[in-house]
Amino acid sequence: MSRRRGGNVTDTIAAPQPIDPSLEPHEVAAADAAETALTEAAVDAANDGLDDPDLDVAPARTGGIDQDAVRRAIFGTWPEERARSRAIAADPQFWRDDSLAMPEHRDRVLGQLFALAEKGTPGLAYPKKYGGGHTAGGNIAAFEELFLADPSLQIKSGVQWGLFGGAIFHLGTEKHHDKWLPKLMSMELPGIYAMTETGHGSDVASVGTTATYDIDTEEFVIHTPFRGAWKDYLGNAAKHGKAAVLFAQLITKGVNHGVHAFFVPIRDDEGNFLPGIGGEDDGVKGGLNGIDNGRLHFTNVRIPRENLLNRYGDVAADGTYSSDIDSPGRRFFVMLGTLVQGRVSLDGAAAVAMQAGLQIAITYANQRRQFDNAGTGRETVLLDYQRHQRRLLPRLAQAYAATFAHDEFLRKFHEVFQGIDDTPDNRADLETLAAALKPASTWQAMATLQECREACGGAGFLAENRIALLHHDLDIYTTFEGDNNVLLQLVGKRLLEDYAKKIKGDPARTIATQVADRAFRGIGLSRLGGHVGDLGFHGRSVGWLRQAETQRNLLAARVEEPIAEIAAALNRVAKASPAEQQAAFNAQQNKLIETAHAYAELIQWEAFTRKLEEFDVDSDTHRVLTWLRDLLGLTAIERDLGWYLMSGRLTAQRARMVSSYANRLLARLRPHAQDLVDAFGYTDAHLRAKIATGAELERQEEAAAYFAELRASGNAPVDERTLYRDRRRAERAAKTNR
Amino acid sequence: MSRRRGGNVTDTIAAPQPIDPSLEPHEVAAADAAETALTEAAVDAANDGLDDPDLDVAPARTGGIDQDAVRRAIFGTWPEERARSRAIAADPQFWRDDSLAMPEHRDRVLGQLFALAEKGTPGLAYPKKYGGGHTAGGNIAAFEELFLADPSLQIKSGVQWGLFGGAIFHLGTEKHHDKWLPKLMSMELPGIYAMTETGHGSDVASVGTTATYDIDTEEFVIHTPFRGAWKDYLGNAAKHGKAAVLFAQLITKGVNHGVHAFFVPIRDDEGNFLPGIGGEDDGVKGGLNGIDNGRLHFTNVRIPRENLLNRYGDVAADGTYSSDIDSPGRRFFVMLGTLVQGRVSLDGAAAVAMQAGLQIAITYANQRRQFDNAGTGRETVLLDYQRHQRRLLPRLAQAYAATFAHDEFLRKFHEVFQGIDDTPDNRADLETLAAALKPASTWQAMATLQECREACGGAGFLAENRIALLHHDLDIYTTFEGDNNVLLQLVGKRLLEDYAKKIKGDPARTIATQVADRAFRGIGLSRLGGHVGDLGFHGRSVGWLRQAETQRNLLAARVEEPIAEIAAALNRVAKASPAEQQAAFNAQQNKLIETAHAYAELIQWEAFTRKLEEFDVDSDTHRVLTWLRDLLGLTAIERDLGWYLMSGRLTAQRARMVSSYANRLLARLRPHAQDLVDAFGYTDAHLRAKIATGAELERQEEAAAYFAELRASGNAPVDERTLYRDRRRAERAAKTNR
Repeated sequence: MSRRRGGNVTDTIAAPQPIDPSLEPHEVAAADAAETALTEAAVDAANDGLDDPDLDVAPARTGGIDQDAVRRAIFGTWPEERARSRAIAADPQFWRDDSLAMPEHRDRVLGQLFALAEKGTPGLAYPKKYGGGHTAGGNIAAFEELFLADPSLQIKSGVQWGLFGGAIFHLGTEKHHDKWLPKLMSMELPGIYAMTETGHGSDVASVGTTATYDIDTEEFVIHTPFRGAWKDYLGNAAKHGKAAVLFAQLITKGVNHGVHAFFVPIRDDEGNFLPGIGGEDDGVKGGLNGIDNGRLHFTNVRIPRENLLNRYGDVAADGTYSSDIDSPGRRFFVMLGTLVQGRVSLDGAAAVAMQAGLQIAITYANQRRQFDNAGTGRETVLLDYQRHQRRLLPRLAQAYAATFAHDEFLRKFHEVFQGIDDTPDNRADLETLAAALKPASTWQAMATLQECREACGGAGFLAENRIALLHHDLDIYTTFEGDNNVLLQLVGKRLLEDYAKKIKGDPARTIATQVADRAFRGIGLSRLGGHVGDLGFHGRSVGWLRQAETQRNLLAARVEEPIAEIAAALNRVAKASPAEQQAAFNAQQNKLIETAHAYAELIQWEAFTRKLEEFDVDSDTHRVLTWLRDLLGLTAIERDLGWYLMSGRLTAQRARMVSSYANRLLARLRPHAQDLVDAFGYTDAHLRAKIATGAELERQEEAAAYFAELRASGNAPVDERTLYRDRRRAERAAKTNR
Repeated sequence: MSRRRGGNVTDTIAAPQPIDPSLEPHEVAAADAAETALTEAAVDAANDGLDDPDLDVAPARTGGIDQDAVRRAIFGTWPEERARSRAIAADPQFWRDDSLAMPEHRDRVLGQLFALAEKGTPGLAYPKKYGGGHTAGGNIAAFEELFLADPSLQIKSGVQWGLFGGAIFHLGTEKHHDKWLPKLMSMELPGIYAMTETGHGSDVASVGTTATYDIDTEEFVIHTPFRGAWKDYLGNAAKHGKAAVLFAQLITKGVNHGVHAFFVPIRDDEGNFLPGIGGEDDGVKGGLNGIDNGRLHFTNVRIPRENLLNRYGDVAADGTYSSDIDSPGRRFFVMLGTLVQGRVSLDGAAAVAMQAGLQIAITYANQRRQFDNAGTGRETVLLDYQRHQRRLLPRLAQAYAATFAHDEFLRKFHEVFQGIDDTPDNRADLETLAAALKPASTWQAMATLQECREACGGAGFLAENRIALLHHDLDIYTTFEGDNNVLLQLVGKRLLEDYAKKIKGDPARTIATQVADRAFRGIGLSRLGGHVGDLGFHGRSVGWLRQAETQRNLLAARVEEPIAEIAAALNRVAKASPAEQQAAFNAQQNKLIETAHAYAELIQWEAFTRKLEEFDVDSDTHRVLTWLRDLLGLTAIERDLGWYLMSGRLTAQRARMVSSYANRLLARLRPHAQDLVDAFGYTDAHLRAKIATGAELERQEEAAAYFAELRASGNAPVDERTLYRDRRRAERAAKTNR
């Protein structure tokens, strides 16, 4: 850890900005001439309130943070499962080998799955009666940590034990469990989750594959009617899968009962397709090339009636369809509800990715020096540049927020899937939470890894430093398990629905309750005038921005007001034709999705804030984490500053304070940045990034020692620039004396 | 082309937004209940001025655009060179083979360079006396188009003929040209450009490698004093390079004259390192794996005095140093000025990448259907969703702007490097332009390719659809040839310098002149009050936003005012200590870099606008391109809306119009989107994306035909959802009649 820390904090903090050595004096002093241009307003604007006494209420520096306490908070509710899985991720046999081409990479990951099976990893997800540990939350926590072994390993095991096994477990019944769970847990039965088709991804209800019941033989006939109905992008389909859980339109007695799941054998023990089945390899992908994704098609393939996973819908021998759920729409949602597990785990994996990328990039930025720190003879540490802080520290705040929000999310998931509080309302809330958080965190992780890559320069582009390839693998997390934009639209519809209930005075509690309680607490448009008045006063505005209540109200208003506006717009066409209604909805679609995204960020901010409220830790640590939470809130507000000004929620003066106070927070957090990433607790065996091992620090020290020795030796060459500047000064002096 | 067009425009335009089929009626009608919540303000806000008559001044649809005329504009000033190079990019022997692992990929690209040499491609860059065509601009135009063959091919040929060859050409003298240009043009001499070191990338002036002159033997001694001084990330260094242009501190007679370039043999004909030279392979990278990047180090390697590339500085046999340029700072800048060629070409390649990504994603979005278009029985085309338009069309506007800005940039480059107008001022302007446009366009291209990748869903992640791998290769374009953030800081310093001159009334024309003429035309802070007054009136505000002059003034103010504020802030510490001055600069760094970025976007907007002014084309085409330019300007203003409101440049009412009018522009441009990407003129042989070949359209038609036939057959199964809804309706009817 100490090898990771760049020098000691005091010699790197607030280091000055270097002057480009090649600039001529008149260039450096360019600003001098600007004097005459100053106006009162320009001074105020440039001041940006930095003179506000409020800014100095809290000291700019405090003692180091309590890393162990913070790490415990980050490990969350299932620390043992997480720790055991981190040990696996640190075991070389599970690491990604960057030198492997796709075929070898696929074989390696398959072998790793067998090794995981031997370690009993899959057990966590399944009932004790099958030798499992059956902890829904613990299983996901462990699964997420596999990301740093190799994302391909994580996702392939997710296909086997989360999707394929999960579908048999959640959509099947005991006979299916007895028959297949032990085999899939041991990897004797490598499986495929055959839901998506070339023609239908987001709209699962419209898949084209049919499963038609044949009364005479008591079989289902699985058939692919056209090319667009080929199953596609399926992990394990190109090579390793022996059977599939296949989603198809269940047709019996002339009625289509909608999408149901069926167990379909795919390959024989020699790996050849069974009769009537064909397929293709999806080939090289943008990432996750350790997984053999592929396509499947079926030509009148017959499977026994019992292969219908019949927990939510069944077909009797005589072809009669039955289900406990009357509404086919509800039934479909309940069946798909099992998919939420995938979204929970991607949200957690995104948090892991952010943590790892930032631990690498900030460690490097705290050791790497570039551009002469004029006067000191030493170069400036990258993290001392304000721009570098601006690029990385708000991302660090998001990583913490995403981590804390994920733990709450995971607890709710556990409540529902462990049967502790498995109510329809709770399931619906869980699904909305998943539809909000998975998009927010996967997009944050993509942007964070890209920023980390660029912040490490050319070194960030080398596989040996990890970031670039993690970014490639993470890319598809924004698409699978539900496209981010489609998921956010579902969230938006739920917010509209809750808003309508609220207006109707519907007693039913709503997902937005946590927002509603304050967002709908009459800070609506009707009261705006008064608000602007309240905000007009400049004094104490930083103190005001620092209050959690202020940040919460602003972030909540960013959700509530647009929802009210959209509802109003839709309401105006409530009596119009379906086409007109849909056109009206489409005209609001972008706004609705952006509002849903703002809602997701509010949830993350609130989770961070709740963590602070309950966090029993020393005051210095608490203060640093509070600064980080404030940075999260203020940079979120800053991104939407236009909206806050248009809505009258912020005056121009206060709006300016948002950015200036955010910059002040960067300077305060900077000395704690290394502690805050070290607290994630990933070792070199997890990060496997040469630039984050201390190698850069050694190079810097070696170079510094070389120059020191050279100077001491008296053999150092004279710098022509020095001779040139001295000559210029002499000339200028001569002129003035003339 | 026609196979690429989704259906006919009229049946896809403004298609309504589907209602999730699984939603219950009460969910769909949620908005109804919102009625009571409406307030005047909410209605206005939801209206967002869509009722403004101005919005309907221009028809929402016009005839198709004149693709040939637009394509000629896109081909720019060197159409023949571009066309010839596009033919090469369409030739399979130059294509990237995604199945190859790194070693085979490297060999393939090396072979492709020999093939290019045979075609005479490198000739374009060099003097006729060496069999070249010597057209600086034409050479770059041709080079950019190689991107779609394989970015590795483009960059490796750029290393050979742009960097290695270019350095010998621009920094060497005739004896060097005679000796090496013919060999490097023919690939007999594969070369390395050895500038960057592990320890110094952006700060080239501080490289550690030394070249010390030895009078006795009349040789330079090349030496690597410590690990950080290893040359690193060098193309051709790991395997193929036989010689290098190496940058090192030139030391003679005890004086360090700064960084100079030397010709250094690296490998013998068997490919073994020459004595005193060692190295490492950089291994797998995030992209461009067809290039053998590596590291080199030197232990007292001796080269003859004549190997100093001595155009700007020379050492006589007796060790006396001489140069025509007195100031070492200037001399360094002039030598590095040759680097601008790389930045020009990356800017152009970024434009090509945006064009290709958008031609793929928009073609697919115009054929792909998802979610039932309720009532029509047909699914909705992706590009009819407002969100999808919002994701892709502003990027299309940026692609056009980047393309037009690049052509102006390239013309300036040609003026200077062809010696048509090679003045120090023109060179300085060219370097500032490069430092502004290369970051803007490479970042735009990265964001555009990522958006295109996600907009194509899972298909976008497959190598067979190109986008993901182009994104991987393009990634490092934001870092090499000058890190984007470092370059933008140089632009910011230049803007500050020009601002100072302006204030001093310095007659010298400044790079910011084009901005200055209006940005400094007294719309500064002092006049703001009056401005806000002017803006207060709501009527005609859309007409006002549509005016080019309005957009220009707003975009220019976004540059000028922050520069004035930063100058003021720096001026306040002009008399302070260097450390305080640097701290003050650092406190402004992020703002300065963002302002430089805004300046780059202004340049792009102006290039688009100039193109419209001179564009002799039919009025429909001109109108569509003007809408696209307006979308560029308005979305740029929209991103900074907070600033425009804080500065008083926009009132809340007009600020709302910005987004609502941008949305209206999306609807107007949507029917022309396919024409606008087809105009780029890339064929299937360039795009090589299966989803952009019309295959998706065929799948859609096959599926539609299948269902039509099924319905006609009378054997279509009944949908349980229909039965269920009818039953529900009947129940409700019964209730009300009771």
